Amino acid sequence: MKHVGIVGLGLIGGSLALNAKKHFANCITYGTDLDSTHLKEAQELGWIDKELTTANFPQLNLLLLAIPVDALQEQLANYLDLLGPQGLLIDFGSTKAALCQQLKNHPKRHQYLATHPIAGTEFSGPQAAFTSLFEHKTQILCETEKTAADLLDHAVSWFKKMKMQLIVMDPEEHDKHIAYVSHLSHISSFMLGKTVLEKETDQSTIFELAGSGFESTVRLAKSSPEMWTPIFKVNKPYILETLKEYINNLKNFQNLIEDDNFDAVFQEMKTINSIRGVLEGITNKNSTYGK
Amino acid sequence: MKHVGIVGLGLIGGSLALNAKKHFANCITYGTDLDSTHLKEAQELGWIDKELTTANFPQLNLLLLAIPVDALQEQLANYLDLLGPQGLLIDFGSTKAALCQQLKNHPKRHQYLATHPIAGTEFSGPQAAFTSLFEHKTQILCETEKTAADLLDHAVSWFKKMKMQLIVMDPEEHDKHIAYVSHLSHISSFMLGKTVLEKETDQSTIFELAGSGFESTVRLAKSSPEMWTPIFKVNKPYILETLKEYINNLKNFQNLIEDDNFDAVFQEMKTINSIRGVLEGITNKNSTYGK
Repeated sequence: MKHVGIVGLGLIGGSLALNAKKHFANCITYGTDLDSTHLKEAQELGWIDKELTTANFPQLNLLLLAIPVDALQEQLANYLDLLGPQGLLIDFGSTKAALCQQLKNHPKRHQYLATHPIAGTEFSGPQAAFTSLFEHKTQILCETEKTAADLLDHAVSWFKKMKMQLIVMDPEEHDKHIAYVSHLSHISSFMLGKTVLEKETDQSTIFELAGSGFESTVRLAKSSPEMWTPIFKVNKPYILETLKEYINNLKNFQNLIEDDNFDAVFQEMKTINSIRGVLEGITNKNSTYGK
Repeated sequence: MKHVGIVGLGLIGGSLALNAKKHFANCITYGTDLDSTHLKEAQELGWIDKELTTANFPQLNLLLLAIPVDALQEQLANYLDLLGPQGLLIDFGSTKAALCQQLKNHPKRHQYLATHPIAGTEFSGPQAAFTSLFEHKTQILCETEKTAADLLDHAVSWFKKMKMQLIVMDPEEHDKHIAYVSHLSHISSFMLGKTVLEKETDQSTIFELAGSGFESTVRLAKSSPEMWTPIFKVNKPYILETLKEYINNLKNFQNLIEDDNFDAVFQEMKTINSIRGVLEGITNKNSTYGK
């Protein structure tokens, strides 16, 4: 019998619950969410068996935290305190440095694993969850040497059953790179949405003129402010760094157009076209852990 | 027997040729391209029958120009001069005001139709062409009242057979709105690609950390500089206007983060979330012409 607790019953928490049900025989899932309608929905959807209460913590084998990163910072140590000696706590937050730093000297540090699955959609809530969300997606693990070997093996084996590509990264390095490769995309998309919505007050014009290019560039502007505000808060220094570089590049491009320097405009775009190879690489990732 | 000439044998020109072959009985297609290998490829792919030479122009029923907008500006009037009295010239460029202005007093103005299909992919060249490219896509028509009614009807009927949604717009309005809804997306995406490529000199980090969000936001950075440089040149005033507003919005968002004003950050994103309705509208377009 395996007891799995899940805090946060949205897209990530729900998809984890579905994978606990799928891969663990005789698994009982316990769930909780700040929004009590989410618990009810999750039970109706069939992937949460019982409400998670403090009475359950001592018997949990796994405690999965799928909540916004500011809530993680506040509650992570408390949750770890509550676990019994067989339990492993895993968080799935989009920033990692502050969390690892915070638990550095915690007496149960070996019962914690810091992860960040590079998986998601622009939808949220229990209805958004689905079993294959993590398939062929990268799962970043931080400071694996600090997690007890048997607990780590157990988690790694589960992630592999979900067909995730496992990668070990330093938490500070993670936060820095992810600002460029994920967080900046979201800001770029939100502000693109804002610029167009401000201008095109008659939305029928957008409907008529927008093609798949606009749709794809602005898709992330549908993302949840509840999830993203804390990310921008927690990863503020790296986000400001990347945002400033982005604005500088835009201003430089603007200057080239203003100066009619279209040879340089052409050359810029030609150089950036090498992103084609990078994008092909994204769909052809290599695992650097556990192979 | 219908004679169709096509100048520019890339994604758009090739997809038009495929639709000429599909919808016109006994159609002969004549093609030309600055890059002579494109003509050879197009003939091998089977959608161009013969090379287009000056000898063919007097007999053409349709002359389709699918070339960069700067080339259109240079060559449009010359091509119109060459047509016989039964011919219709249609251009498919992404900017419209300067072209319509240029032909305003041309003696054969009634044999010209200005259009802009909101259809494309990030790929280019003859191999990128496919028959269904235009299906359920918007086709913008400008100054339809200046085109001879029978020639216009003929073109409209063909576009409807391709299942396009037809819309009539003022050319100047078109250029202004399209800067927001299409051209800005491309600049945003190119500069995002640049920012990430400059930072992540070790591209394996991008492969590992990038998810579908990054991939979707940066997809347009694969677009052809040969096509986009002339667009930025021709639509310079509107592009500079939209780009400045975008940069201002980004700077304002940066300031909010710098000032730890995360309530405002949240509120901004919550407001922009209304783009969800707009994006749903894009896939549910209404035709305002010919219904």
